[in-house]
Amino acid sequence: MPHPIALLSDFGIRDPYAGIAKAVMSSIAPGAPLIDITHDVPPQNVTAASFVLAAALPYLADGTVVWAVVDPGVGTNRAAVAVTGTMDGRHLTLIVPDNGLLTESLDLLEQKASVRLDDPAFYLAQTSATFHGRDVFAPAAAHAARGTLVSTMGTASDPASLVRLPLPAVTKDAHGWQGAVRWIDRFGDLITNIPGDTARAGSWRVRAGRATVHGVSHTFGSVPPGEAVAYVGSWGTLEIAIRGGDAATRFELAIGDEVRLQPG
Amino acid sequence: MPHPIALLSDFGIRDPYAGIAKAVMSSIAPGAPLIDITHDVPPQNVTAASFVLAAALPYLADGTVVWAVVDPGVGTNRAAVAVTGTMDGRHLTLIVPDNGLLTESLDLLEQKASVRLDDPAFYLAQTSATFHGRDVFAPAAAHAARGTLVSTMGTASDPASLVRLPLPAVTKDAHGWQGAVRWIDRFGDLITNIPGDTARAGSWRVRAGRATVHGVSHTFGSVPPGEAVAYVGSWGTLEIAIRGGDAATRFELAIGDEVRLQPG
Amino acid sequence: MPHPIALLSDFGIRDPYAGIAKAVMSSIAPGAPLIDITHDVPPQNVTAASFVLAAALPYLADGTVVWAVVDPGVGTNRAAVAVTGTMDGRHLTLIVPDNGLLTESLDLLEQKASVRLDDPAFYLAQTSATFHGRDVFAPAAAHAARGTLVSTMGTASDPASLVRLPLPAVTKDAHGWQGAVRWIDRFGDLITNIPGDTARAGSWRVRAGRATVHGVSHTFGSVPPGEAVAYVGSWGTLEIAIRGGDAATRFELAIGDEVRLQPG
Repeated sequence: MPHPIALLSDFGIRDPYAGIAKAVMSSIAPGAPLIDITHDVPPQNVTAASFVLAAALPYLADGTVVWAVVDPGVGTNRAAVAVTGTMDGRHLTLIVPDNGLLTESLDLLEQKASVRLDDPAFYLAQTSATFHGRDVFAPAAAHAARGTLVSTMGTASDPASLVRLPLPAVTKDAHGWQGAVRWIDRFGDLITNIPGDTARAGSWRVRAGRATVHGVSHTFGSVPPGEAVAYVGSWGTLEIAIRGGDAATRFELAIGDEVRLQPG
Repeated sequence: MPHPIALLSDFGIRDPYAGIAKAVMSSIAPGAPLIDITHDVPPQNVTAASFVLAAALPYLADGTVVWAVVDPGVGTNRAAVAVTGTMDGRHLTLIVPDNGLLTESLDLLEQKASVRLDDPAFYLAQTSATFHGRDVFAPAAAHAARGTLVSTMGTASDPASLVRLPLPAVTKDAHGWQGAVRWIDRFGDLITNIPGDTARAGSWRVRAGRATVHGVSHTFGSVPPGEAVAYVGSWGTLEIAIRGGDAATRFELAIGDEVRLQPG
Repeated sequence: MPHPIALLSDFGIRDPYAGIAKAVMSSIAPGAPLIDITHDVPPQNVTAASFVLAAALPYLADGTVVWAVVDPGVGTNRAAVAVTGTMDGRHLTLIVPDNGLLTESLDLLEQKASVRLDDPAFYLAQTSATFHGRDVFAPAAAHAARGTLVSTMGTASDPASLVRLPLPAVTKDAHGWQGAVRWIDRFGDLITNIPGDTARAGSWRVRAGRATVHGVSHTFGSVPPGEAVAYVGSWGTLEIAIRGGDAATRFELAIGDEVRLQPG
């Protein structure tokens, strides 16, 4: 059986784009399991895509090929790349535009190697200027899922030269820690970049926008319905939620907004 | 080939939650077909989830493992359970939080057995307090799909002691039948819990909110465009719709609202 | 391994309809890859479905069975049909209601044959009046995916007698070309039916609603952010977009609206 292919994009699922990319994969690598992580990254938001991809990485099967396409620069001279590496003993291959989408994933991978996907023999016969997800990345992912070495699909490059985005930092000063909202889920829960270990190590007041939450709880079930709560969530970082409610709306917070941990 | 796994949740598909749960399944049971029934149960609505799951059950292949996770009590002391049973000769395994999600399915299954999934050897190595869909239910479903007996994954329990929800009842009185709207689909069609046989056995006036429909038709194509129509739908129960329109909006009806069949 | 089944419908993915249809397919053809092209065709819009299906056709694997169900006439006397044909040497089987959904696909296929799916032996044991996607089309697609010849599933018919819809035409007059918007994607890009070769062959002013765009560019990356741009897109036809913006909203354009190419 071919390796599984995990898919992440901002194509949505209303349009046929993701489906057609999967049809292409299925043509080249019949029987490869196709696992949609999400196709609803906010349009063209490479920073959010980088955060989600890194959150999914620990759960992918050994051998998985990742097709991750959030690609505002499609049709320009940004490179298409394949990056291989290992995480916890699992071998992963990531097929992406070189635009920073791997910023956080690169810190999780060891024994990294990278290749510019510049050999058109591995593209579809006709390539468009606007949909490399179908024409370039889908065939590359499918060939890799069949076991073709990505080193044969283009020119070796230096993983250290891959594009990295300036991400919202987690910083410490005399007043505590400062981080940012990195994702808002369908429940309105706010996922931050403040590590779980930091949030658990102390007695904190959590502040973000209109929200002030006293203490870091075990889970959102720790407070009565309707109350705000901070806890270390399933992404491994601090989250702010309202039990049974929508914290993003109530506290008027968006991706990128500041979050503070203050002693108290 | 492993058994198929059918998935039902309120995680949505915008966030990576369902995708990551599928990646976990695919790691443990490579090649298991993963079939999304829906991930868009209204958030934390266990009653609606119970209704949808029971509607899907007759169509699942023999051997299917169901991963159904609508879990407002995650992180509290509600149990995780595996329930096995047969329906029309097909063997099914249901992996769920014990919160009433199986209320209607339990009436459809014979030769039931149940197990509390309390052996952490079948969990992911690290479990969060907020995402048992990934950490507890996904590995259990995948092991079951590979053929591991669920009786080896925890402590046997009594199926009669599983949590059941008080559901909207179908009742009869001197004025006819009374039931409830149980689901509203994307077309705005109102799916009720009134059995098709009841709706077909008589000459009825159907009333719900602002709607009064005379007679139960064969299908929505039986009336002119723009008109309200009642018929026995594909869920096997009475439905109210507007041909080419949105009945839920026009008649201001929501899940749980009352529906009456009156002679006439 | 069974052939892959590609799915296209207007069922959405919030309701369990598409998932239950897939469960049926998986029961009959275990292991058949199920590839969702889209389930979000605008409700009951057969014309839009015809356009999307034709756009996906060139990317489907040899042997693919298409289950395409946008079916406002379900329960009436419209026929269920299977159409086989070849495109670029690939053999395809299309399982659809005979309502015009294949209008554009029929022009792409050679060596066509068609069959009315009128043998109930290939339906589910119980069929509803409202959900032939599950009861009629899903079993037919699954049997075809397993290799059952569709010619054995019903009565041979004449492909020339299949229903065709009057589609928005592409016409030429003294003032240039005239076409229509056929799809609007999640980015607000307007996909037209004007062939790429026509758009590239000349120096054009593109007009549609409030939009006037001078020249046909290589891609949307060719203009500064916020500017309108016309280019030949990944569907092979002229598109109108705003780089980083939503052209449909800004220019108040909808599916079916007129687009003109004028010299200049």
